[in-house]
Amino acid sequence: MIRNILLTIEYDGTGFHGWQKQPGQTTVQGHLETVMSRLFKTEISLNGTSRTDAGVHALGQRASFISDLGIPTEKIPLVVNNALCGAERGPFAIAPVRIKAAEEMPMDFHARFDAAGKEYIYSIRTGKEPDIFRRNFVYHVAEQLDTGAMRKGCEALIGTHDFKSFESSGGNPRLTTVRTIYKAQISEDEPGEIRFTIRGDGFLYNMVRIITGTLVDIGLGKIAAEDMPDIIEARDRSRAGHTAPPGGLCLAEVFYDEAKLKG
Amino acid sequence: MIRNILLTIEYDGTGFHGWQKQPGQTTVQGHLETVMSRLFKTEISLNGTSRTDAGVHALGQRASFISDLGIPTEKIPLVVNNALCGAERGPFAIAPVRIKAAEEMPMDFHARFDAAGKEYIYSIRTGKEPDIFRRNFVYHVAEQLDTGAMRKGCEALIGTHDFKSFESSGGNPRLTTVRTIYKAQISEDEPGEIRFTIRGDGFLYNMVRIITGTLVDIGLGKIAAEDMPDIIEARDRSRAGHTAPPGGLCLAEVFYDEAKLKG
Repeated sequence: MIRNILLTIEYDGTGFHGWQKQPGQTTVQGHLETVMSRLFKTEISLNGTSRTDAGVHALGQRASFISDLGIPTEKIPLVVNNALCGAERGPFAIAPVRIKAAEEMPMDFHARFDAAGKEYIYSIRTGKEPDIFRRNFVYHVAEQLDTGAMRKGCEALIGTHDFKSFESSGGNPRLTTVRTIYKAQISEDEPGEIRFTIRGDGFLYNMVRIITGTLVDIGLGKIAAEDMPDIIEARDRSRAGHTAPPGGLCLAEVFYDEAKLKG
Repeated sequence: MIRNILLTIEYDGTGFHGWQKQPGQTTVQGHLETVMSRLFKTEISLNGTSRTDAGVHALGQRASFISDLGIPTEKIPLVVNNALCGAERGPFAIAPVRIKAAEEMPMDFHARFDAAGKEYIYSIRTGKEPDIFRRNFVYHVAEQLDTGAMRKGCEALIGTHDFKSFESSGGNPRLTTVRTIYKAQISEDEPGEIRFTIRGDGFLYNMVRIITGTLVDIGLGKIAAEDMPDIIEARDRSRAGHTAPPGGLCLAEVFYDEAKLKG
């Protein structure tokens, strides 16, 4: 029976050129489609929710596909994960991509177009010495950061704004750069381990990384927290801070339930 | 002035073909020597303590080298680490290798020959779901392990024994396979996070990984803990368990002080 299946996917983006399939590049979408098509002996074409960049990770990427598979939906994670691990080298190897869940959706459902919003988490570590074992997962900042100022900088982000100042060049100029942010929060779980959580109805190209870089610049005292409203107002990329590196970024969750998105 | 300098080095071994320099392979020793020789404009030749395998990590590898450097010993970590990070791609990249300390030693000191012993830590994670973000650092075992039985298995390891049963083929048959183990300890910091610590005066080829695999087999009930003395006694590789994968293994510390080694 033809079904529309929605996958929840986690991945370590370190070794991938991002989510989206590209000729001659190893991407998460390309790798998953290859392994799944071989496994199910039918061409699988995934519609991913978020085009995460090279080096960006995911705990809750979503992708839907329509297919006529011979196995029950709930068996899909296990068989795909076995195939993914089998594609790695070594008898004990764990794949960098894992299907966390599969669920059947109405035929007109589309993982990207129907998404109400997303939550990203960006991880920062401060201190003189980097943790080399987490170098692909956290942004190491050698100086101390003023998290109070960073929290203040977050406040101006909440609500509906034109975020053009936080978009890398390459965005489509005909599309709107207005987005709504529901949550922008700095937490410090232990000294030096800073986590920035941002939730909104959508994000421009590199928006989370530029916002994070701007917050780091605020934390370093290079930009005043009080200037955040002006930076937003300016609609000018040169007014915002640097683009934080991709490894600290993780797509945490995709929301299909608007009420849940708005928290 | 010509000095004999001892380095303490940590590395993420994931992307390396082990410590030891090999033609045509990226190794930790080869990479460090290349970066340091370029930096100091003189050929640096490192004597490493432990020839860690491909994929094995280190928190406390040691290596000594004799050179006539123009900078004070205590500045070496900073300048080498800057050069190592500069050799990586991207403006915020952290290198997978880091010098933790440099100290001046007597001219006749040799990092390997003078070592009194070493401590290794092997990390295991049990549970149905692997943690893909730590897949290169922990050995994932899907079944539960009987840590009580594993602790019992550890007891037989303590002391001076012929550990030939725990040596991969490739060892030099003319060399002794007798070693002294001072510590062999299983701890479970949180449920499913098991850590095996082993300290001894020396280790045979793959010895820690074969001992770990044997302990895992004991934890799974495939080998009886009571059989450990017989397995040692047999001097036969086929009597021991499987070889645990390299990623879970970390060279934690090298001891030059015999009293400290014996704890």
